[in-house]
Amino acid sequence: MAEKSFRVAVVGATGAVGNLMIQVLEERSFPVGELKLLASARSIGKSLPYKGRMLPVEELTEKSFRGVQLALFSAGSGVSRKFAPIAAEAGCVVVDNSSAFRMDPRIPLVVPEVNAHALGDHPTIIANPNCSTIQMVVALKPIQDAVGIRRIVVTTFQAVSGTGKRAIEELRRQVADLSEGREVTREVYPHQIAFNCFPHIGAFLDNGFTEEEMKMVNETRKIFEDPEIQVCATTVRVPVYFGHSESVNIETRAPISAERVREILSGAPGVIVVDDPGQHRYPVPLQAAGTDDTLVGRIRMDPSVENGLAMWVVADNIRKGAASNAVQIAEILAARNLI
Amino acid sequence: MAEKSFRVAVVGATGAVGNLMIQVLEERSFPVGELKLLASARSIGKSLPYKGRMLPVEELTEKSFRGVQLALFSAGSGVSRKFAPIAAEAGCVVVDNSSAFRMDPRIPLVVPEVNAHALGDHPTIIANPNCSTIQMVVALKPIQDAVGIRRIVVTTFQAVSGTGKRAIEELRRQVADLSEGREVTREVYPHQIAFNCFPHIGAFLDNGFTEEEMKMVNETRKIFEDPEIQVCATTVRVPVYFGHSESVNIETRAPISAERVREILSGAPGVIVVDDPGQHRYPVPLQAAGTDDTLVGRIRMDPSVENGLAMWVVADNIRKGAASNAVQIAEILAARNLI
Repeated sequence: MAEKSFRVAVVGATGAVGNLMIQVLEERSFPVGELKLLASARSIGKSLPYKGRMLPVEELTEKSFRGVQLALFSAGSGVSRKFAPIAAEAGCVVVDNSSAFRMDPRIPLVVPEVNAHALGDHPTIIANPNCSTIQMVVALKPIQDAVGIRRIVVTTFQAVSGTGKRAIEELRRQVADLSEGREVTREVYPHQIAFNCFPHIGAFLDNGFTEEEMKMVNETRKIFEDPEIQVCATTVRVPVYFGHSESVNIETRAPISAERVREILSGAPGVIVVDDPGQHRYPVPLQAAGTDDTLVGRIRMDPSVENGLAMWVVADNIRKGAASNAVQIAEILAARNLI
Repeated sequence: MAEKSFRVAVVGATGAVGNLMIQVLEERSFPVGELKLLASARSIGKSLPYKGRMLPVEELTEKSFRGVQLALFSAGSGVSRKFAPIAAEAGCVVVDNSSAFRMDPRIPLVVPEVNAHALGDHPTIIANPNCSTIQMVVALKPIQDAVGIRRIVVTTFQAVSGTGKRAIEELRRQVADLSEGREVTREVYPHQIAFNCFPHIGAFLDNGFTEEEMKMVNETRKIFEDPEIQVCATTVRVPVYFGHSESVNIETRAPISAERVREILSGAPGVIVVDDPGQHRYPVPLQAAGTDDTLVGRIRMDPSVENGLAMWVVADNIRKGAASNAVQIAEILAARNLI
């Protein structure tokens, strides 16, 4: 079994997350037999490094998935909606990073540390949750299991890399423009992001929340298989390159102490407790960047409500929040002979 | 009465807030007869502009307040604890921006739009609240009056100017160091602030909260004269120069619609409702910087709890959060013949 390897495709290979998927496949030694890099026609001619070789980027077409066993998609919802079913039809198992299928009741929405069981016996398309949801559910699942969670109030501090390469470039350019006295230009965001922040991620819906905020509500319920859990999110873009931070207040169903939460989380998969504030130790995005862990700190009782707890949760949004979570799903698929 | 003018001192005149106090006195045409700029001995020799003239900075001593009618203090708690009583003893009315006297039950803690009545008939020392508290209570007071507030959960996004000039310089220097490939150095903050954020403002207390977080709890209760109101705060430093933002979730005592809150706030003193998210209109710190208003937007029902509301509150932390609030207090003192 150890020698088994897979024909893998990465769709959206030239994007920030797609690129990182290739790197994470290599870093985590996923058993790749053959690697196919797929992107839109305008990326033809590019090549990307994998294990010391440069692999050419091929154009994504309806024939791209012949003979491919596993495809990691990160090319936006439109591409996923069109091509994931084609890939699945060709016998390929798809792990999709877009929001296209996340709320489809037939599609498992999976964070390996939280609900790997949801993969079932014969998954074809598996949805990777939204970045902000992933790190929150990794941190909260052990508490949900221990005492139940009634309500979550979360405010996010989201890095520009979540928007993609052009947003990373926009922050860099605005910082340079300001330092050199040029007028700041905007292409990606509705407001200057350098030295600013704004509570606007995804489109606004009729209820006053954004798409991103409602993803945190609906995906948390689906992943926890708990339609009763109440979530209110405010999602905010901040001038950070990598790493989302979350201020999380919860109300548990039964009492639990901050000390006990710290103990439970210290033994939880994918979680690192960084919680010695007197020594200035708490999670910060610069520290989480480049890792696959979810860092949790500032764990304290919230005395403003019965069974209240507050904490601060940080993870690399394009690793654990996207690429690494997708590869970790693939690892389970491989281990369970589901590809 | 219109010709009446006052002998005014600014203590800590060379600091970020002190400097701005001088500017705000001029901008708001406070009736200054004579202006005395006071600072520590190491600022002697400096001078600062006021109404087109350069005024010398004098050393703060026990004799500085002879003949001074109004002193605006912004030189830290230690200086306030020592010199505010000396000034008061000399017959000077003190508006103190430090935390030294805020929780003293004999000292009024005042935000003019919220509780000007607390000044009473014969104030000697008046405390200016913490920056994060001021903008929050300005936004919430009309709701508190309308339906009562049971609980507030707030997460802040705080600008470096709140820490002072050296922190503004630290963010500038770190950004330049990074852009030029130099190693980033830290002098003011425990972590790099450029392209990072951390939930650490003020010292950590035994209950796991920071001093800044507990200021938001205790000052809100004192200003609202409501010891029952529950507040849980997470205060976070972000790489923004000017303007604090706050994600605020509240639970009211009686139901109220988001539409009604928008109406009430639109008519409230010191508040500007910026709430047309479909048009990308919501408060952002770059927009609040330089104004004395508290901007409120993203007003929406929070369906995760009974009588829940969420909103986003932004103000210039060193203007409304400090210098302008102090000058506004002075304006009321003058109008009421209390100086």
